[in-house]
Amino acid sequence: MQKFDPLPDFAEITPSAAIAAQTHGWRAKCLQRLIRLDMPVPRSVSLPASLVRCIAAGQAMDYASVLHLFGERPLISVRPSPANPDWGGPSTVLNIGMNGARHAELVERHGQAAADALYLRFVQGYAVHVARLDPDMFEGREPSGEALRAALRAYADEMEEPFPEDPARQLSEVLRSMARAWEGTSARLLRQAKGAPEDAALGLVVQAMAQGIGQGISGSGVIQFVDPVTGEPQITGRWLRQAQDRAALRDTDEALYLTRDARGPSLQDIAPGIFETLSRQGTACRAKLREEMQIEFTIEDGRLAVIDAVRVQRSSRAGLRIAVDLADAGIITRNEALLRVEPRALSELLHPQVDPRGPRDVFARGIAASPGGATGRIVFSSAGAQASAARGEPCILVKRETAPEDIRGMHSAAGVLTERGGITSHAAVIGRGLGLPCIVGASDLRIDPRERRITGADGRVFREGDIVTVDGTTGEVLAGAADMLPPALDGHFRKLLSWADAVRDIGIRANADTPADAQTARDFEAQGIGLCRTEHMFFEDARLVAMREMIFADSPKDRAAALARILPMQRNDFVQLFEIMEGLPVCIRLFDPPLHEFLPHSRDGMRELAEALDRPLSEVTRRAEALTEFNPMLGMRGVRLGIVLPEIYDMQAQAIFEATIEIAARGGSVVPEIMIPLVSAKREVELVKTRVDAVAAKVRTAKSRDFDYKLGVMVETPRAALRAGDIAQHAAFLSFGTNDLTQMTYGLSRDDAGRFMNTYVQQGVFPEDPFHILDVDGVGELLLIGAERGRRTREKLVLSICGEHGGNPESISFCRKAGFDYVSCSPYRVPLARLAAAHLALLEPLIEDVEIQ
Amino acid sequence: MQKFDPLPDFAEITPSAAIAAQTHGWRAKCLQRLIRLDMPVPRSVSLPASLVRCIAAGQAMDYASVLHLFGERPLISVRPSPANPDWGGPSTVLNIGMNGARHAELVERHGQAAADALYLRFVQGYAVHVARLDPDMFEGREPSGEALRAALRAYADEMEEPFPEDPARQLSEVLRSMARAWEGTSARLLRQAKGAPEDAALGLVVQAMAQGIGQGISGSGVIQFVDPVTGEPQITGRWLRQAQDRAALRDTDEALYLTRDARGPSLQDIAPGIFETLSRQGTACRAKLREEMQIEFTIEDGRLAVIDAVRVQRSSRAGLRIAVDLADAGIITRNEALLRVEPRALSELLHPQVDPRGPRDVFARGIAASPGGATGRIVFSSAGAQASAARGEPCILVKRETAPEDIRGMHSAAGVLTERGGITSHAAVIGRGLGLPCIVGASDLRIDPRERRITGADGRVFREGDIVTVDGTTGEVLAGAADMLPPALDGHFRKLLSWADAVRDIGIRANADTPADAQTARDFEAQGIGLCRTEHMFFEDARLVAMREMIFADSPKDRAAALARILPMQRNDFVQLFEIMEGLPVCIRLFDPPLHEFLPHSRDGMRELAEALDRPLSEVTRRAEALTEFNPMLGMRGVRLGIVLPEIYDMQAQAIFEATIEIAARGGSVVPEIMIPLVSAKREVELVKTRVDAVAAKVRTAKSRDFDYKLGVMVETPRAALRAGDIAQHAAFLSFGTNDLTQMTYGLSRDDAGRFMNTYVQQGVFPEDPFHILDVDGVGELLLIGAERGRRTREKLVLSICGEHGGNPESISFCRKAGFDYVSCSPYRVPLARLAAAHLALLEPLIEDVEIQ
Repeated sequence: MQKFDPLPDFAEITPSAAIAAQTHGWRAKCLQRLIRLDMPVPRSVSLPASLVRCIAAGQAMDYASVLHLFGERPLISVRPSPANPDWGGPSTVLNIGMNGARHAELVERHGQAAADALYLRFVQGYAVHVARLDPDMFEGREPSGEALRAALRAYADEMEEPFPEDPARQLSEVLRSMARAWEGTSARLLRQAKGAPEDAALGLVVQAMAQGIGQGISGSGVIQFVDPVTGEPQITGRWLRQAQDRAALRDTDEALYLTRDARGPSLQDIAPGIFETLSRQGTACRAKLREEMQIEFTIEDGRLAVIDAVRVQRSSRAGLRIAVDLADAGIITRNEALLRVEPRALSELLHPQVDPRGPRDVFARGIAASPGGATGRIVFSSAGAQASAARGEPCILVKRETAPEDIRGMHSAAGVLTERGGITSHAAVIGRGLGLPCIVGASDLRIDPRERRITGADGRVFREGDIVTVDGTTGEVLAGAADMLPPALDGHFRKLLSWADAVRDIGIRANADTPADAQTARDFEAQGIGLCRTEHMFFEDARLVAMREMIFADSPKDRAAALARILPMQRNDFVQLFEIMEGLPVCIRLFDPPLHEFLPHSRDGMRELAEALDRPLSEVTRRAEALTEFNPMLGMRGVRLGIVLPEIYDMQAQAIFEATIEIAARGGSVVPEIMIPLVSAKREVELVKTRVDAVAAKVRTAKSRDFDYKLGVMVETPRAALRAGDIAQHAAFLSFGTNDLTQMTYGLSRDDAGRFMNTYVQQGVFPEDPFHILDVDGVGELLLIGAERGRRTREKLVLSICGEHGGNPESISFCRKAGFDYVSCSPYRVPLARLAAAHLALLEPLIEDVEIQ
Repeated sequence: MQKFDPLPDFAEITPSAAIAAQTHGWRAKCLQRLIRLDMPVPRSVSLPASLVRCIAAGQAMDYASVLHLFGERPLISVRPSPANPDWGGPSTVLNIGMNGARHAELVERHGQAAADALYLRFVQGYAVHVARLDPDMFEGREPSGEALRAALRAYADEMEEPFPEDPARQLSEVLRSMARAWEGTSARLLRQAKGAPEDAALGLVVQAMAQGIGQGISGSGVIQFVDPVTGEPQITGRWLRQAQDRAALRDTDEALYLTRDARGPSLQDIAPGIFETLSRQGTACRAKLREEMQIEFTIEDGRLAVIDAVRVQRSSRAGLRIAVDLADAGIITRNEALLRVEPRALSELLHPQVDPRGPRDVFARGIAASPGGATGRIVFSSAGAQASAARGEPCILVKRETAPEDIRGMHSAAGVLTERGGITSHAAVIGRGLGLPCIVGASDLRIDPRERRITGADGRVFREGDIVTVDGTTGEVLAGAADMLPPALDGHFRKLLSWADAVRDIGIRANADTPADAQTARDFEAQGIGLCRTEHMFFEDARLVAMREMIFADSPKDRAAALARILPMQRNDFVQLFEIMEGLPVCIRLFDPPLHEFLPHSRDGMRELAEALDRPLSEVTRRAEALTEFNPMLGMRGVRLGIVLPEIYDMQAQAIFEATIEIAARGGSVVPEIMIPLVSAKREVELVKTRVDAVAAKVRTAKSRDFDYKLGVMVETPRAALRAGDIAQHAAFLSFGTNDLTQMTYGLSRDDAGRFMNTYVQQGVFPEDPFHILDVDGVGELLLIGAERGRRTREKLVLSICGEHGGNPESISFCRKAGFDYVSCSPYRVPLARLAAAHLALLEPLIEDVEIQ
């Protein structure tokens, strides 16, 4: 015979009982707090997790003694009390103790219909959740005497015994059933998905029923004190008269509002005293529980009972505001407020959002590549987008996929939708960079750019000019204009981030290529520009012409002449950037892309180019062909161009230095940082440094002004990381370009990975898309090697990462631990990064910090 | 006043004098050896390098006492004696001591003409080499009294003093001039280019002149005992009667042969005794000097004098034969013979060579990409090459550049010539792989494939069908058929390599894709196949059709059906390979290239494909476009294909296993090694291993036969090297594919690097083309990391490299030190690699070896 240890004790929840969330669960602890606040909580008994485990294992406890605590013939409920409210739990069972005798009493007290309804509710709950009978046989009936009798018959038929009358047996079955449900595989998987540990504990709470039915004012309801979408202070909730259960609120139109307004009688009208009490108790509860709570209450013959309180469900923006308001009220610390806001949630707040409460007419789905919602007219080309922007009409740029030449079109569009590409495709990367809502890889969509129409997954056809909405947060494409929520860059947002800045211990810069980007970076309080890609500056019309002349020049002299025409424009670019970023560092990456990106791709474009250059078409075509590359990613670009055609970097350095002087002349200050891309050998840095230094000397002489600058290296090739010790001899800083570094470490082109990345992640070949989450094991090791070797050569070497990974909390954590000075990310990721860095500083003390303590 | 230390001593060269090559130079030592052999060497005095340095610094020695050693009124010569004969040195000066008095004596003794000639010769040499006067004023005249007088006048005019009569002054000027010439910048650079150290020493030898002029048999000549081109034993040389100097042999048609033959009177006819003596002395000299020497001799009135002996100039093939013959004769050890043959020289011997002695009509130059010479008719397409091969006519395939689809054309051609590409372009790599003479990057050539003609650098036009010769050893393209030397894979070659195998301590395998490659590998005694690329197997006509059906299949089932048609062909490929390599390991790399390589590139090709597949052209075009990649090198290839379309690897594994069984059934034995390409994560290996093991189990069951195999990984991505510890859990071997690994470590596409690699190497950005010489600092570190981590997981892990670097001595050295098991290189590099490995074993003892001693 099996021998059991003595069972753990259950405990009545009193102000002084030893109740902890860890042992008794979150709900038991919460109820004790309400009781300590003198709230009228019905008598409650907590079964600790240790006891629940014994029950699940089949040990019988003394159910009668529990029942005994609730007086004679009690009606009771059993509610789950997991250690964390997010971990779910078995359904609550109400009205345990109900049987023929108790039913008869209730008929007498509340009438036949009410008594039948209460009994039926119990039979239904018991049959489905405890006896595990088919819900179809019990649910979905209007309460009536007939329905009650049918349910009792059905139970008896199925179970081959009558419905249990003994309250102790009822209770024992309910407890065992709930305890076992917690141990079930699906419940375990569900809660583990929410972060529950293997041995997550469930307590149970047995509580006396408050009926909400009676002669006087009776009913049930919920009340909370903030708006769940905005987080604004505002009493919200509804209540239903003569109702026992808040679940009914969902299914009825008869529920009443709580505060007095035009829509009809409210709790405030009907029972001003109770409303007043609830409001007072809400304030106390908020302070005591250090959280915005939703309170469940029952009124029985004018007597208020508080049944339960749960954390208010909230949108991201409401969550931020609640945290800031609690901290401002002194209820929680600022650090706690920081930790209550999930960094990833901030992204949503930076853009208008499609209102989740509004109707959604979805006609296609894709990958949610850049969050936020945008409504506009369909356009199929960048030219169309620019024309639309000129007319002041928001538009959605729809393309099979986007290419570098679409950059201006994307700047002009309100949102982007592509048929192809993945989370790291051009459209997605640029979309996130611009903070532009973007859906990519909408492969159930058919785009016909010639006919200027798209066909949705459901066969609906949309034409150019039709209005659609892109929901970049969900990946859904909606017909027409959807309801929108404005962005939430309000005082609360700024306040929280200022608190984050006060605690974080790693710098956050932004990647910004244009004045608009820089302005966004400044608005989001980035600490400078970590990566300014200059190639975008060459795509504008006048520059593109000069650029193409440069490409077709036959001598260094002709090249320099063509570049001289770009110089003033480029200088002006930098003046603008420096003005916006005044006082902050700006790191400019020298020209990087292969030259063929600047040539037209079509035959017509070639012909136009031949005309513009006044050269034979055949020659233009031949030279364009000669520039074509098998693997442009690994070709003639970056510093390789800088060494073979040094005039380009000369011009850029001159523009940077002249802009620096111009800013200084206006009383501003800037120390530009010049970054060399795609380095793989020390000598490359030496050669470029020699020329840049020479240009600086020339500009100093020509302008009779001195200025300072820093020269550094973008570490994008594995070799640059391995040889960082050499390279740091000539570099004041190293910035790891993790996009390219990931491509080369894996031998994996970001543009081509889309075709198998899904399969790879699904099959667990890669735990995550390495373009999305930094590959700590491979790419990360190269970062550590590079950082360690670089610093060994030059102690004060400034280290950073730039690129898509820069704003991810995982990357920030990695860089912090590796002793990096800053991360640089797209401007719209800056708030997220600032908060994430604060989280890390609070949660992951570095070894030095620990040593200091 | 400058004070000098006492001058070092000069020494007469006698059998017992203290003469060492290190201090007195190579020539002095050689002469001493000849003297010890009792050869009739005229009296010789050696000035050690220390003394020569003092002379160069301006110290005056006692020239009279040197002269005194040579008797009264001697005529003497001064010859350079550097420590190493390859380091060059100032020109020899003859007839020092000549003046009016001596001239008069000689007129009396040998007649006016001979005396005038000797005097003129001295005046010319002195004026040009000592006084540094303009050679045009002194050289190029027929000897005569008039010429002598003119030379003496010219000297006096230029120098404003008469020609020196004092022998001591003559000697002092000659010695100082020669000593200073050695210190000159250009001489220093020239000898350093040949490996001389900074402080390379020059000794000088003063020797009594033997005149070769007289009443009896007189003259000068050279004799050697091997053929300089083949190395065959054979007395070779010429002599000239009544001549003082062997230099005259070059400029005259009057020289006589040494041995009796039909061409006229020979030394053997005229002076059989002297011929006999010379032959005997040659044999003694060879044994004593342990080398094949060319002996310079003079006969004066029937008396033989041996003036000097130098190492026989020799071709690569002669060098090999001489070394082997010397070892076989017991004169040197086998190891010494090995070290006397430069590994790189072997490449020349594997192919027919353009005879360097023949006429060369060069019309273009390019990069010597694959050694050897080939003559054939020009063709402009692979189809043309195949047609030509079918007719049995050798052809030269001429293309702008070659692509994978040209592989069959290259197989059919005798040589390849391309306008574009570098040392690692497709044509170059495949050319070397096939042992096909190849010139790439012949950019001064204009190829017009439409007009089917090429225009040479000199404007000459060649058309399809014209005969040209490609000299892949020099990079020259010759008009017409050039004289050829056959390959030299004779007994000597094989013997030397068998000696190499006896000492080397690292394995050498070959990369072989086809039965022809495998046969070459076997012929060159590779120890197995280290890399069999299977993709070439899919380009043959019948397979290409099935392959394209596979690509266009809509379901795994259709894919498998298309592949099932390739299976028997693929199995047969492996059966053939296994038969040829019987008993040796064969490492088969699973399918690697991106699928789009198998699709046609032209519109016509697409149409044909659409017909063959019975699908609409638009669909075929669309799907082909969808397969296009931005960076195919980094795209959907290798194991990525193997995981997304696992049917391909299933088919290949089945073919390998069935072939293994078939070979076993015939009594053969093979343990196939299966290699997974482009791995970047352990899980990729796990997934492929699971399926390959399953296929093995299926084949074992179906055939009721057991067999063994090994599964390993090709390490081509930096990440695979970094994660080698994980990966080795599932891999029996790691083979580093240094081609791709170099591409990814540098972020540098081999195909696109050509445009700047020259600039880069010239400017010293990269010390060498890293695709040519393994980058020890970057790629090499990844190899070491991978090897170390892999072996830490699996002690017996087999390590190797394959790819272009495999056969380089530098790579072999690196791999040996890193403890690799073998290197694998193209079959035609195997002999070089075997010898290079032997050199390393002899010259660079590993630490373990040292410990054992």
